[in-house]
Formats: sequence, structure tokens, C-alpha cells
Amino acid sequence: MTKPLKLAVAGVGNNISALLQGIYFYRQLIQEQGESSLPGIRRLRIGGLGVADVEYVAAYDVHPNKLGEDLRDGALASPNNYPRLAVELPPQGVRIEQGLTEDGAVSRSAIVKSMVDSGAEVLLYSLPTSLQWAASEYANAALEAGVAFVNCTPERVARSGQLMQAFEDAGLPLVGDDLASHLGTSVVHRALLALLQERGLTLESSYQLNFGGNEDFRNLRDRGESKRESKLNALAQAGIPVGAVEVIPSAGYIPHLRDNKVAILNVEGRGWADTPVSLDLKLKVQDSSNAAGVIIDLIRIAAICRRLGQPGFPLAAAAVLKSPAHGHGQLTAWMIEEAEQELDRLASKA
Amino acid sequence: MTKPLKLAVAGVGNNISALLQGIYFYRQLIQEQGESSLPGIRRLRIGGLGVADVEYVAAYDVHPNKLGEDLRDGALASPNNYPRLAVELPPQGVRIEQGLTEDGAVSRSAIVKSMVDSGAEVLLYSLPTSLQWAASEYANAALEAGVAFVNCTPERVARSGQLMQAFEDAGLPLVGDDLASHLGTSVVHRALLALLQERGLTLESSYQLNFGGNEDFRNLRDRGESKRESKLNALAQAGIPVGAVEVIPSAGYIPHLRDNKVAILNVEGRGWADTPVSLDLKLKVQDSSNAAGVIIDLIRIAAICRRLGQPGFPLAAAAVLKSPAHGHGQLTAWMIEEAEQELDRLASKA
Amino acid sequence: MTKPLKLAVAGVGNNISALLQGIYFYRQLIQEQGESSLPGIRRLRIGGLGVADVEYVAAYDVHPNKLGEDLRDGALASPNNYPRLAVELPPQGVRIEQGLTEDGAVSRSAIVKSMVDSGAEVLLYSLPTSLQWAASEYANAALEAGVAFVNCTPERVARSGQLMQAFEDAGLPLVGDDLASHLGTSVVHRALLALLQERGLTLESSYQLNFGGNEDFRNLRDRGESKRESKLNALAQAGIPVGAVEVIPSAGYIPHLRDNKVAILNVEGRGWADTPVSLDLKLKVQDSSNAAGVIIDLIRIAAICRRLGQPGFPLAAAAVLKSPAHGHGQLTAWMIEEAEQELDRLASKA
Amino acid sequence: MTKPLKLAVAGVGNNISALLQGIYFYRQLIQEQGESSLPGIRRLRIGGLGVADVEYVAAYDVHPNKLGEDLRDGALASPNNYPRLAVELPPQGVRIEQGLTEDGAVSRSAIVKSMVDSGAEVLLYSLPTSLQWAASEYANAALEAGVAFVNCTPERVARSGQLMQAFEDAGLPLVGDDLASHLGTSVVHRALLALLQERGLTLESSYQLNFGGNEDFRNLRDRGESKRESKLNALAQAGIPVGAVEVIPSAGYIPHLRDNKVAILNVEGRGWADTPVSLDLKLKVQDSSNAAGVIIDLIRIAAICRRLGQPGFPLAAAAVLKSPAHGHGQLTAWMIEEAEQELDRLASKA
Repeated sequence: MTKPLKLAVAGVGNNISALLQGIYFYRQLIQEQGESSLPGIRRLRIGGLGVADVEYVAAYDVHPNKLGEDLRDGALASPNNYPRLAVELPPQGVRIEQGLTEDGAVSRSAIVKSMVDSGAEVLLYSLPTSLQWAASEYANAALEAGVAFVNCTPERVARSGQLMQAFEDAGLPLVGDDLASHLGTSVVHRALLALLQERGLTLESSYQLNFGGNEDFRNLRDRGESKRESKLNALAQAGIPVGAVEVIPSAGYIPHLRDNKVAILNVEGRGWADTPVSLDLKLKVQDSSNAAGVIIDLIRIAAICRRLGQPGFPLAAAAVLKSPAHGHGQLTAWMIEEAEQELDRLASKA
Repeated sequence: MTKPLKLAVAGVGNNISALLQGIYFYRQLIQEQGESSLPGIRRLRIGGLGVADVEYVAAYDVHPNKLGEDLRDGALASPNNYPRLAVELPPQGVRIEQGLTEDGAVSRSAIVKSMVDSGAEVLLYSLPTSLQWAASEYANAALEAGVAFVNCTPERVARSGQLMQAFEDAGLPLVGDDLASHLGTSVVHRALLALLQERGLTLESSYQLNFGGNEDFRNLRDRGESKRESKLNALAQAGIPVGAVEVIPSAGYIPHLRDNKVAILNVEGRGWADTPVSLDLKLKVQDSSNAAGVIIDLIRIAAICRRLGQPGFPLAAAAVLKSPAHGHGQLTAWMIEEAEQELDRLASKA
Repeated sequence: MTKPLKLAVAGVGNNISALLQGIYFYRQLIQEQGESSLPGIRRLRIGGLGVADVEYVAAYDVHPNKLGEDLRDGALASPNNYPRLAVELPPQGVRIEQGLTEDGAVSRSAIVKSMVDSGAEVLLYSLPTSLQWAASEYANAALEAGVAFVNCTPERVARSGQLMQAFEDAGLPLVGDDLASHLGTSVVHRALLALLQERGLTLESSYQLNFGGNEDFRNLRDRGESKRESKLNALAQAGIPVGAVEVIPSAGYIPHLRDNKVAILNVEGRGWADTPVSLDLKLKVQDSSNAAGVIIDLIRIAAICRRLGQPGFPLAAAAVLKSPAHGHGQLTAWMIEEAEQELDRLASKA
Repeated sequence: MTKPLKLAVAGVGNNISALLQGIYFYRQLIQEQGESSLPGIRRLRIGGLGVADVEYVAAYDVHPNKLGEDLRDGALASPNNYPRLAVELPPQGVRIEQGLTEDGAVSRSAIVKSMVDSGAEVLLYSLPTSLQWAASEYANAALEAGVAFVNCTPERVARSGQLMQAFEDAGLPLVGDDLASHLGTSVVHRALLALLQERGLTLESSYQLNFGGNEDFRNLRDRGESKRESKLNALAQAGIPVGAVEVIPSAGYIPHLRDNKVAILNVEGRGWADTPVSLDLKLKVQDSSNAAGVIIDLIRIAAICRRLGQPGFPLAAAAVLKSPAHGHGQLTAWMIEEAEQELDRLASKA
């Protein structure tokens, strides 16, 4: 039997609620019908680790509704609003500890000690966007504790030369930055624009608006510019001329949508003899499921790489990251696939 | 200068109106701004032939509004309802002749003689769907006249072993069957379903409805079943499980839409922990532009293959056909590309 | 306490499943939170009768999956596909009896006797569309049994001068024909077109397509023409110029939609200086809920009128019928409201 | 023949471009096919004034692209981006003069003198939203010049007790505040929510997002809160419970949409037995046409009231204003209609 993945989490938001509930959902499903195929899962096992093989060992947050609570209760507490799935969810036996704050309410060394004591293999960083100092601090804490680090946010961690070098020197995996959604607006938008191009039609104009009801949309409303650029970059990387494309990452915070994200896309093109083509699309997703569906791969890759002492293999994770350490430029699908297979091979021999 | 492509057409419907007007549109555009990039054109030159290098030399139809008219006037006559583009359109000096009918109002040999006299290199077959006898007769006429044949309809011509052999023996290209749209519902639907699959989400259900205002939609309403199967096959070929997919090729004939086609697509999927994902899309296209954008490649490939005495190279056309002679199964994108390049190479040497 | 409404039903389709389950849903809700406001109910009490005051006493059908079963089991049997609501649904103690067939497998007098024995006050007629003979036969059976008749279908019953006279002579209410949906495509379409007109914009074109997955959509596919005219008439009655409007009552039978109906509407208009305005709408409803939400009013009106010996008051039902006995022409909202109030007044005195 | 309406305009934005071009469009149309019906016009004549009877006599603006230009050229200059309609548009012989600025680059008395000299009957105020000082200053200038005032913006002018009294004392009409769109998002949203209510369905949630590419959307992005409240108030006034409704007045500034406005609406409701109903709507309009279609009525009402010395009759304008002087509360459709008819009657006798 596979040794379970020991996970520490920094930030107990909707992503953690989705991940936690989802893992119990899959455990129940596997019990009922085996593991031969699981809905919403791209890779059943990574280096031998299954979807259900995750054990929470430590959690950090600063919100009064969460602090001191069992991880189960904190993950379900407001303002989290991921839906309560129809699965039994036992207490995790993990108390949410005081997380790092800018005014130093807790020292980094306390977090390091807590992680070491917990036996954590991976620290999953998933705080609200734009707290660069927190991302750096937690990454350094992971480094000191000898724990792999997974960064779900756009903060610069895996792209920081200094941190990257330090993790490599320590033989620890550093996975990031920023999650590509499981099925997000960018990937759908890119698919439609690429199709137009491939068929020889001319892109006239396009727009993409996203809105939703979780804290991300409330926060993004005012800090959307960097997200807008990141989304346009994602399109540009795919060779799509983005001069005619407009992206609004948070067009609105609509509380009753709760953890759902809605995206509106429009594409106007020109075909034969300049006659028009138009596409209108509405996409509705459970926002944090979109994250959890990717996180489940990232933490498994990070854990296996750490176990194997192979910090370089996180490139197996590049496909589901928005801004991986070395960019998408040099990576081909083939390289990623080869890394995945090599990882599985090494793990099976270990 | 390239020798123009001498084209005969069987059936003077919206496709021919789109092709004819479009060629004048591009001629004007090339005069104004050169040929370095043309909207809606995938390949500027095929074997040296440009988009503007098409000359109509013969046309056959049976409709009283078209018979005896100059091709220009017939192409613009009702029930055709492709829009009148803002280009000058001179008379073509080609009178629309009586086409073949089941009761033999005109003999096949008369058509053969007419084509030979006209100097046609390619016969473009574009009659209403489901006239198998007509497709076969016109193909045989092309064979006798030494003319390449391009079949825009789902009738079995290129997939008929006997006809294929006869064209090959005669050193004549036979291109068909059925056009893949330039940007059609099937290709968009396929892209979305493939995306779901690639990201590891589970397809729950999907539907596709098409409606429009040209004669095709009026005719299809009652003969939609074969079209439905063909569209589902197109999805299945791409490895998509179509058990959960429903396709309605002609959900309605809505005259005021004229030559526009509207498609409504819905995809319901399941992601992480079985949480839902939904996609709704509306696609609006100029139906016959969608055909003309593909025809312009097919007739150029057919003409060049005939000039080179290379009947086998129509596989360069396979990408834009729904049911090519040997199916899509054995063909890779790489083989098609190589065929395209070889054709260009041979043509440049000739 | 109000005496419960004793109901007989001819046809045990989705409408009956929706009605039956819904009544248990409301009973439970009333127990939990009282009757002061009920979701989806327009009139809490009609002549004193509440939504929960319905008792099934007889049921007729011919389908092998239903015949001989308890009404509860028959209502849930395939091909019915109304969703199974989250309410407890006990057996009804009513066996589904053999219904009328064209070949006379059962005599009308047997149905009459069954209704008399059951004590039914109202016969709800809800067979598949276009069985005129069955509608007439059941109406005559109700007449002989002294039972009020409610016709949910477009068959001519309330608009038949002869039947109307016979019911009036017998002092029995006759309510029909055809249900207006609770929130249907027609009413939404009408609201949008009326808005355009009221604001002084010019309607350029409009279309409406409906599709779904229940038996109605399977049947309608080929018998859509009368439904199309009825829908266009409904728009025309509201003073909307329908020359530019196209309606497709069943654009497709899409089994996985089950009892859901989806409608796609488009409106193209012209405003100031002929500049364009466009509206695209998607409506999704539970088809049989749309019927049950109206039936609940009709059967209560019919029962109260019968109890009061006031066959003329069914005009209180006109608002939710598509083709009431005397048409919509002479009826104003005011007359309907007055009839409703008079009915309540008479009932409260009785 | 009717004496033309002499119009002065403060602010030469898209609204003025739409109004100016539209008037030439209608003049040409009237010449070609008479005045018996005009697309997009609610009232052909108001007090005898037709749509074409408008003459520009003065214009004020501060933008360098507009200042000093003929009104025609200024109306077509960037950042204005209303489309150039296919009508001939001669120079107007009216030079755009320096408008009022906060630093007093021009004195109010200079504007007063200019208006008096021009013979203006009505001053149309149409500057960017939220310049309260400008609205007040121009209103006072109109008062001093003896000119009627029409306020297209949400600034408080007609609702200012002091200004209202001053205009009334001077026998001058004061029309405002804020235009209801010809066919705007609010009115469509209200129609759909009212429909739900009228049919007895329960509103679960609803949202409305607006986006576009003109200066309004650029400006609104940051000043959307008051607009949001005004839009929610408009819904609430119609008796709609807005607790479940969210409105985003400017979800995005998308330059390539130019003067088009797109609105996305969603309504989720509950019908019979709490089963769901959902409505998704996309509305696309030419934003400034939406304004011009209303302005044409307001300036005619203002001019006629001034000519008749009937400052009180602007209530004939209330229907197309968002915040009329006395609110919508006391006004019935009947009162507005009666005011309209009285105005016509007085004008015909004058």
C-alpha cells in the first residue's frame, strides 16, 4: 500500500474546502466502484499516489472563523462558500494554527517547527492573491522545514531565481506559480481563437468577462490589471494575436453566485470574402473545483519528487501551471509527458 | 503569370454565388493592397494558383430562374439568397445550360461535349443533397470529358471503388466527398468536447442544433437522419464518446435568416468531485461562405493535380473533406502537409 | 376544514407525475412553515380550496407500464421522466384502469360507472396531443357521470358548441382548451416583442425554437404545424405583427434533456436612425411543472363551480388557457378578476 | 409649415452625433417615402413638431478635437465613436464654442449671450456624468437666456427645488433628470422580473452586467455605485423584490465595442414544487441611439411648452426620464397620456 501524502496548507479557503471534501468524495466512490475511472481526474495515480492518498497534517490561517478550529470546520466556515458536497466529512484531528501576518504575530520559526513536528511532505500555499511577502515567507519556511512547496497564486516564487536555487540546493521540489484552471476561461478562449486561426479565418475582435461570488472576485475587482495581463499573455503564448482581444478578469462580484464562476466570451471573425462569423459562449464552473482538480496533481508530483530526491521533476507539473519556473516557451507536450513517465518509472522502482 | 483555372459548375446555388462574388472581392482587394495576406484564406497559393485565378467556362442547372441566364444573373437569382457583396460583378459570358435530369431532358454526352468545348479543367458538383444518381452521372461525364471532379455533397463518389479506379486509370483527380465547413458547427463542437476530455473532465451530455434560412435547411428538415449520423461520426472519429451527444442537423427552416446558419451548442460536464461544468455556445456563420472558403482550396488542388498528371495527390484535400476517399483513419496531419508541399514543389518545377 | 377535491385523471403522463409529487411537496412545506406563501403558486386558495386539498379517486391509461398499477407507481413509470422530487410519495390506493381505445377495448359506460363509483368531481384530461376522438369521448363520459371536465390539450372540447351547450344544460363546468404554460416560451416572447413595440422600435425579425426530451417533443416533431400556428396566433392576439416572426414548436427531441424544455429566442429590431438592437434569450424550464402550476388552478375552479352549480364561472380560468371557450377577444383582465372574486365570495357563503 | 426647433447643445459627444446624423437620416427617409411611419420613432409629431424639424444654432464643448470646429466635424471627431451612418451630412454652419470649465475659462454670461444671439429655444445638456457644477451652471445660463433646459444626465437639476421654482417663475420648461433608454437593460430586466412575479413564480436570484466601448463605460468603471443604486431603484419602483438581484452598470470597458452596449442578464426562479426556471439573455444596442431616440421627444416637448408658455407640461416627458422632477410615484400612464394630448391640442390651436 502507498504511504499517504502528508499535506500542510497555508490558507484554508475554498480551494481547501474543495480539496478536502473531494478527497472524501473519491474515497467513497472508490469503495463503491473501484478506482478504474474517476470523474474529473486526469491521472488516477502519479508515482503510485492515488487521489485518496492525502492526509492533512497541518494548517495555517488568520481568519477568526477558522483559527483554532479543526481543519474540517474551518474549511466549511464563512466566508468560504464552496458547496457542501453530499459526503460524510469527519473531523481531521488537525487544529488550524495562527498563520504568518505582516506584523509578525507568529514567527516563521514557529511555522517551521510546526511543519517539522507534523511530518509534512508538502506545503500548499493558497492565500488570497497579491500577498507577495506571505508567499515568500511561507516558501522560506518550507525550505527550512525540508518540505516541498506548491504555490497556487500568481506571486513570484518558482520564478524567483534565488528561491529556485535554494530549493534545488536543498534537494526540494518547488512547484508554481499560479494554477491553470482545470477547465477555465483561458483554455476555452484559447481553443476557440486557435480554431479560427487554424481554419484561416481572420480574428476581428474578441472579449472575455469573468464574474463570480467568492472572495477572489471581491478582491480582484480592484486588482484586476495584473490578472488581465497574465490572461492576455496566456493567449499570446499560444500564438494568438491579442491586439483585438479584451479580457476582464473580474467583471463583477455577484455574491449569490457563491463559489461559481461565470465567463462570457465573444469572438467576431471574418471568413470567405470578409463575411462575418460570430461566436458567443457562456461558461459556468465551480471555481474552486477548478483549482482542486489541478492541485491534486501538483501535490502528488511534489511529494513524489521529494521522496525520490528529484527536485527537477516538477516540470511534470508545468502543463497545469500558468507561469512555471522556466516559462512555457521551452517546454513541449512531449517533454512534459516524458517527465511524467520518468517520474512513474522511478517511483515504481523505489 | 499563372494560367487561370478553367471551372465548370453543376448546380448554380448559393455556393456558386459565394464563390463567384468572393473571387471578385479578392481580385479587388489584391489590386488595392497586394496578396500578402487575405482575410478568410488559408492558403494564398496552391501549386502557384491564387484565389483570384479562377475563370468560369461552363455551368449547368435546371431551375427556370437560372436556365439560359448568364452565370452572374443565375447565381444572384432566387431562391439563392447569399448576400449581394459590395463588389462589381460583370456578366461572365457563360450561359447556364440545361443540366441533367432523371427523365433525361438532356443527354450525358451533351454535357460531355459542352465541357470539352469549354476547355474546363475541373467540374465542381454542388447540387442539393441526396441526388445520388446526379452525382454519379456528372462524375461519369467528367471522366469522359477528361475533367477533374470535385464533389461538395455527401453522395458517394470518391468513396465509390469503381469511380475511384476509373478516375485513377484516366489519370484524373477525383476530390470528395462532402465539404468540411470552413468554420462549422462540427469543428467547434469537436474542439469543445476534446478540450473536456483532454483536461480529464467527464462529459455528461451535449447537444447541437443547427438552423438557417437557405434551401439546405428546407430540404434537410425531412432528410436529416443521414446528416445526423455523419455529424456524430465526425465527433466519434475524434475519439469522443458520443453516447451522451445529440445532434439536430436542421432544427428549423427560418426563412428570414436567409443564407445564415445559426448553431446552438450545449455541453454539460463533471469536474472535481463530480461538480458541474456547463458551456453554452451560439455560432452564427454565412453558410455558403463556409463552403466557398473550402471549395477554393479543393478546385485548386484538383486543377494542379490534373495539370501534373498526379491523380493521387488529392489527399492534399483530405483535411477539408468530411468523407475523403480513404477515410480519415489512415491520414495524419503530417501526411496531408507533406502532400501539400510535394504538390507545390512539383508545380513549381513544372 | 375544506372538503378535499376528488380528482379523476385520463392519461397518467408527466403532468400527473408533476401534479401528484408537487401536492405532496406542498403538503410537507405547509406542515413545516404554514401556508402564508408557497413558491410557484399564484393563488393560495380558490373558493377555499388549497393546493394540498386534492385527492385522487380514479385514473385511466392504456400503457402496459401503467395499467393495473397503483397511481403512484404508474406516474413514476417510464416513459414518464419528470424528476423524482425529494418528497415521500405513498401509494394512492387507486389502481390505474384500462382507458378508452379507438377499438373499444373498454366501453364508455364502464368509464362512466367507474367515475360515478369513485365520487369524482373533476375529470382532468391530459392524453398526448391530437387524439380528438379521445378528448370527445372522455368529455361525454364526464357529462354522463355528472363530473366537471378540464381539457389540458389543444383538442376542441370547450370550443365545441355542442359540448359546451350540453355541459351548460347539465349545470356542469367545462374548462379548456389547452394550457398556457406557467412560464412558457410564448409569454416570454410576447413580453419582449411587446416591449419593442411599446418603446417605438421596429421589429425586423424574430425566431423561437423549442426543444426537449419528453414524449411531447418526440410526438410534436412531426405534428408541429398546428402548434406553430397556435403559437403565432398567441403572439398575434397581443397585437404583435408576426410577419417577421418564426416559431419552431419542436426543433428537436433530445432524450437526455428528459422533462426539461429549452427555448432559444432571438429578436432583431431597429431603433433610432435604423440602428440595430438585438436580443438573444435562452429559457430552461421543467416542462411538466409548467403544466402542473396551471392545472392546480383549473381543477380547483372546476370543482368549486360544480359545487356551487355555477357552470358559467370557468371564465375565471381563462387567463391560463390558450384557447378558452369564447376566445380571449372579449375578455379583459378585469372581467377575469371579477369572476375570480365572485367565485370566492359565493364559495365563502356556501 | 412648422417653425423649426432651434437647439443649443452643451457637450458634443456621441449623443449629439447620433441625434445629428439621425435627423438627416429621417429627412432623407421622409423625402423618399413620406412621414406616415418612421422606424424607431414613438411619436411622429409632438405639438406639430416632426423629427426632422430640428435646427442646430449653438454648441459648447471643451475638447481640443471639437473646439472651434463646425458642429458636424466636432460630432464626428474622436473620442466620439458613434458609427458614421450612410447619410450625407453637410456642415451645420455652427462653430463649437468654448464651454464652461471649473476654472472659468469662459464666463457664464458669455454663454448666455451666445444663446440669446443664436435664438436658441432649448439647451440640451449632455456632458459626461457626475459634473454637478456644470449641470447647475448651464441650467442657470439657460434660465438667464430664457431658454428651456433638457438634462440628459443623472445630475440633480429638475429635482432641485430651487432651480425648478426659478424655471417655473420664468415660465420656462425644465426637463430632466436622466434619460430612460429607448430600449435599455433596465426596462428589459424589469419586464422579465415582472413576468415572473405576475405568473406566481419565485425569484431566486438575478444579475445584470453591462459593458461597452464608449467614454461612458470608461468613466463608469470607477463611479458605478450611484448608477448601480439608480438601476436597482428602477427595479424596486416596479414592485420587484431586489434583494436577490445584482446589477453591475459597467462590468467592463471594451474599446472595440465602440458605441455599442452589451448587457448580460440572468434570472433564476422557482416554479411548481420548487422546480427551477432559468433565463439567460444577451442584449446588444447602439448606446447613443438609445439616448437619441428619447432626446428627440424631450427637446420637442421642451420647445412646444416654451412656445406655449406652459412650463408645467414637461410631465408629458416623464415616461422617458429616469428621475423626473416629481418622481414616478404620483404619475400614472393615464396622466402622462393626457398631458401629451393636451399639449397637442394647445399646440394645434396656437
